[in-house]
Amino acid sequence: MWSDLLTQRGVCLVLSAPSGAGKSTIAKALRAREAGLVNSVSVTTRPPRPGEQEGVDYFFRSAEQFADMAAAGEFAEWATVFDRCYGTPKALVEKALAGGYDMIFDIDWQGFQQLRAAMPQDVVGVFVLPPSLAALRQRLHGRGTDSAAVIEERMDKALAEISHWREFDHVLVNDALEDAIDQAHAILIAARSAVARQGGFAALGF
Amino acid sequence: MWSDLLTQRGVCLVLSAPSGAGKSTIAKALRAREAGLVNSVSVTTRPPRPGEQEGVDYFFRSAEQFADMAAAGEFAEWATVFDRCYGTPKALVEKALAGGYDMIFDIDWQGFQQLRAAMPQDVVGVFVLPPSLAALRQRLHGRGTDSAAVIEERMDKALAEISHWREFDHVLVNDALEDAIDQAHAILIAARSAVARQGGFAALGF
Repeated sequence: MWSDLLTQRGVCLVLSAPSGAGKSTIAKALRAREAGLVNSVSVTTRPPRPGEQEGVDYFFRSAEQFADMAAAGEFAEWATVFDRCYGTPKALVEKALAGGYDMIFDIDWQGFQQLRAAMPQDVVGVFVLPPSLAALRQRLHGRGTDSAAVIEERMDKALAEISHWREFDHVLVNDALEDAIDQAHAILIAARSAVARQGGFAALGF
Repeated sequence: MWSDLLTQRGVCLVLSAPSGAGKSTIAKALRAREAGLVNSVSVTTRPPRPGEQEGVDYFFRSAEQFADMAAAGEFAEWATVFDRCYGTPKALVEKALAGGYDMIFDIDWQGFQQLRAAMPQDVVGVFVLPPSLAALRQRLHGRGTDSAAVIEERMDKALAEISHWREFDHVLVNDALEDAIDQAHAILIAARSAVARQGGFAALGF
């Protein structure tokens, strides 16, 4: 059957967004819908928080071990956030995709660019926007009793992230959550049938 | 709201396939699902069949009128099949897309190439494959009591069409009809959020 020749290889679905746009909620809802959609488990140098499990939440490694892995090119993407390192082990991604699992990544635009460079045929990038600048500001406010200066700093960071939306494949506004989930889901399904990914069928010689 | 800035312009969804792959069934099911998905109505030089309505099934025109329209560049794509001409009026497509309607086209690879050249930002192309060569042969047989030579001629034509699958954006195998419809539907939804189509949001200056 020709359906066996179309690729069964998984897709890397990247969701990027400014903080407060709701991408983690969308990612969680997608994983609940699609049993074959697995979370990427990162390596990190930060210590485990109570309840976090090695190999489930993160792979916890020392800064030295992390540096060795990075030097050996073992990461599909990695970044330093507040002096802590986070990286996606290339071998695990490769294993999941080859096994037919799709993966979902909750990373920023720099991580997306690294991941795309590492596995250009496998990655589809979705940029999630908040409903509006005003709504974003409100959500960043809503997190607590931070000073105006702290809120403005978060807004600046969010705007800097948003400035990279053009580099992604798709953009969606998280206006109505269910619609945003439906759209992200459709993007994942559509990505599976992309002609560029059908090396197996191409091998038939048609 | 930013969702108002993302394009509301419709998408041209092209389904191409060898005869017998079931693309018309998929197109019909999609139109039933999506009220905003309209059929492209073609201009043709063939005479109306009983029950066919002007402006609903086709726009019926003389060969001379058709030639004038073609010469004036009024077609987004056109073709001659068995001495009859069929063409898609560009103005109608433009009107539907600008009004936020998606359009579905049941055309061959040559029509797809013309349409893409005419409106490159608007078109997403899906190539529909039959489950296998054996299944295709069986479907072409199933149509009546044609001679082996006629069947082979149809197979050759189908294979020639299939040889263009790489030129499309997506490929799907019509193995299980409901799955094929779901995939085509997801491709349509995903196409709406493509970054390349978001000129309105780009104008914000982010």
